[in-house]
Amino acid sequence: MSRFLTPHAAELPSTVPFTGPETLERRTGVPFRARLGANESLFGPSPQAIAAMERAARDVWMYGDPENHDLKQALAAHHGVTPGHIAVGPGIDGLLGLVCRLTLGPGTPVVTSLGAYPTFNFHVAGYGGVLTRVPYKGDHEDPDALVSTARSTGARLIYLANPDNPMGSHHPASVIEGMVATLPEQSLLILDEAYADLAPPGTVPAVPADHPQVIRMRTFSKGYGLAGARVGYAITNPELALAFDKVRDHFGMGRIAQAGALAALQDQGWLRSVQDRTVAARTRLSAIALANGLAPLPSATNFVTVDCGRDGDHARRVLAELGRLGVFVRMPGVAPLDRCIRISLGDDETLDILEEALPLALKAAG
Amino acid sequence: MSRFLTPHAAELPSTVPFTGPETLERRTGVPFRARLGANESLFGPSPQAIAAMERAARDVWMYGDPENHDLKQALAAHHGVTPGHIAVGPGIDGLLGLVCRLTLGPGTPVVTSLGAYPTFNFHVAGYGGVLTRVPYKGDHEDPDALVSTARSTGARLIYLANPDNPMGSHHPASVIEGMVATLPEQSLLILDEAYADLAPPGTVPAVPADHPQVIRMRTFSKGYGLAGARVGYAITNPELALAFDKVRDHFGMGRIAQAGALAALQDQGWLRSVQDRTVAARTRLSAIALANGLAPLPSATNFVTVDCGRDGDHARRVLAELGRLGVFVRMPGVAPLDRCIRISLGDDETLDILEEALPLALKAAG
Repeated sequence: MSRFLTPHAAELPSTVPFTGPETLERRTGVPFRARLGANESLFGPSPQAIAAMERAARDVWMYGDPENHDLKQALAAHHGVTPGHIAVGPGIDGLLGLVCRLTLGPGTPVVTSLGAYPTFNFHVAGYGGVLTRVPYKGDHEDPDALVSTARSTGARLIYLANPDNPMGSHHPASVIEGMVATLPEQSLLILDEAYADLAPPGTVPAVPADHPQVIRMRTFSKGYGLAGARVGYAITNPELALAFDKVRDHFGMGRIAQAGALAALQDQGWLRSVQDRTVAARTRLSAIALANGLAPLPSATNFVTVDCGRDGDHARRVLAELGRLGVFVRMPGVAPLDRCIRISLGDDETLDILEEALPLALKAAG
Repeated sequence: MSRFLTPHAAELPSTVPFTGPETLERRTGVPFRARLGANESLFGPSPQAIAAMERAARDVWMYGDPENHDLKQALAAHHGVTPGHIAVGPGIDGLLGLVCRLTLGPGTPVVTSLGAYPTFNFHVAGYGGVLTRVPYKGDHEDPDALVSTARSTGARLIYLANPDNPMGSHHPASVIEGMVATLPEQSLLILDEAYADLAPPGTVPAVPADHPQVIRMRTFSKGYGLAGARVGYAITNPELALAFDKVRDHFGMGRIAQAGALAALQDQGWLRSVQDRTVAARTRLSAIALANGLAPLPSATNFVTVDCGRDGDHARRVLAELGRLGVFVRMPGVAPLDRCIRISLGDDETLDILEEALPLALKAAG
């Protein structure tokens, strides 16, 4: 390893938290017919967002506004907070990295769920934090266990996604509010609400934006359909929101991304139509699973996690066979969650492909 | 400050390395008529790059390829290296941050020039490195002094931009090659070649891509006119290039940015036309300066640094008066460089505005 690396950097693996579908396509030489593995929005973004990005493409010779002023103003109005409560960054992935950078040193304890978002774990390891992983309780992250483990380990950070990825489950607002009320004093809760725009009413907790111990993460990648634009934001107390300015890449948000996110936010009618199509697609995808003898889990997200009814090896075979048939899906990484595969919602045409492929894949998987 | 921050993070200031022109416009309420301060390309990107980004906007529901495969292949072919010699990131700014993260710990010595790129200094401070700043020699960065200071301080990193920002000067390839030959064994040279696409022939040194102690930084923000897309890349030995995978935001490169950069690279005819217009605009901008009794410095970049002939206070007054007249320019931050203002090249229409405003600004500055 290069002699210029810090000892910590030298020890880190050069890994990708997720293998991209393009990489899989290059390996097999066959493009996927149904891209249902990355929880992208097959319903796409608002046409107004596309138009705004096309316009911005003609202005791309200019750097974006390093303060993200217009987007922050609009987000603040949308959420009923001040712009000082908002930090904009390159997706939740980027923001999670910045939170870890701001808060973790070598050996700092952190708590998450066993099988939860790997990219968070990547960042924790990257900044030298030490993770304790708490098992899911059934198919839900376990707020009580996360809090008690945070207390016993002295965790600086607690990560919880609500709704959850990869299981698609969610806790009602009251459960999260109860969790927030019992946070150990030394712990900051990262509440990843990437899927909140698609969750049932009553999912988003009433946590004051000024709360000193909570940082909520939102994204334009899921409900708003802008995954390839890389725009996320955090909502938190102004002191912590301002701290991002210490370490963020100030000119890191591109002009096209800023324009797309702003226009997407301004088209709430499109988001509502996506929400409606999400509910319908969940129903259809669940029906496809049931028709094949599988058990779809209830979903509060833009994917349905499907219990294949046996062990992880079986689910991995099903996933591999789907891949061979041109259907890209993913699955949880650890037992017992890995008895499932995770299928993103699609438009009718893409779900038709899934419907045709799933019985063949199950048969081939044995 | 938030009690969750590390001691180091708590000590960092919440500063922006550069105040954006949009911020200045919001302060005054008056938009700039001539945006000549950020070294953006007023000649714009290739129309093919714009078209590629418009097409990609319609596919933006998909994440970008986390491996940046197609862009890396094309860059490798363009530079006659392998894809393993390339690391793609969100602009040179983002890549500088990653290099600092990989190599610096608390107290690690770093050497740069006094008055050189502030964003590099921001990242060094952000990761706890300790900067020694070497004076410019005349209007050039001083390779000999950088190397000798690196030797005496035991510097892990040496930063040098060739061509230089903010002075616009450059060293011929042979000088950089001589510098590389004398690097202390413990030092990695970051050779920032942001402006190399616009430099005179003979500027880019013949450093083998496998060299263990050199990492070259390139960008699509300057010659290619894609500042608002955030695409940069490093060329270095495969061992160091691979190390970026330890810490980078793997899904951080957006789909539109990837498409724009690839199309821009494939339109070398456009880059050549920009190079021609750059030479012509340097000549005209220099003539405008001379006509006003100022001394334009020779430029190897997309800006001309203009010696206002007195001290920093005078140059700051000139800059402020230009701003009042709707002309955005910047200037070096420290003496003696700050006797100058730095004016980006523009198309004829924008230089007309400068030509009209400059005598008024000089008169008002006294």
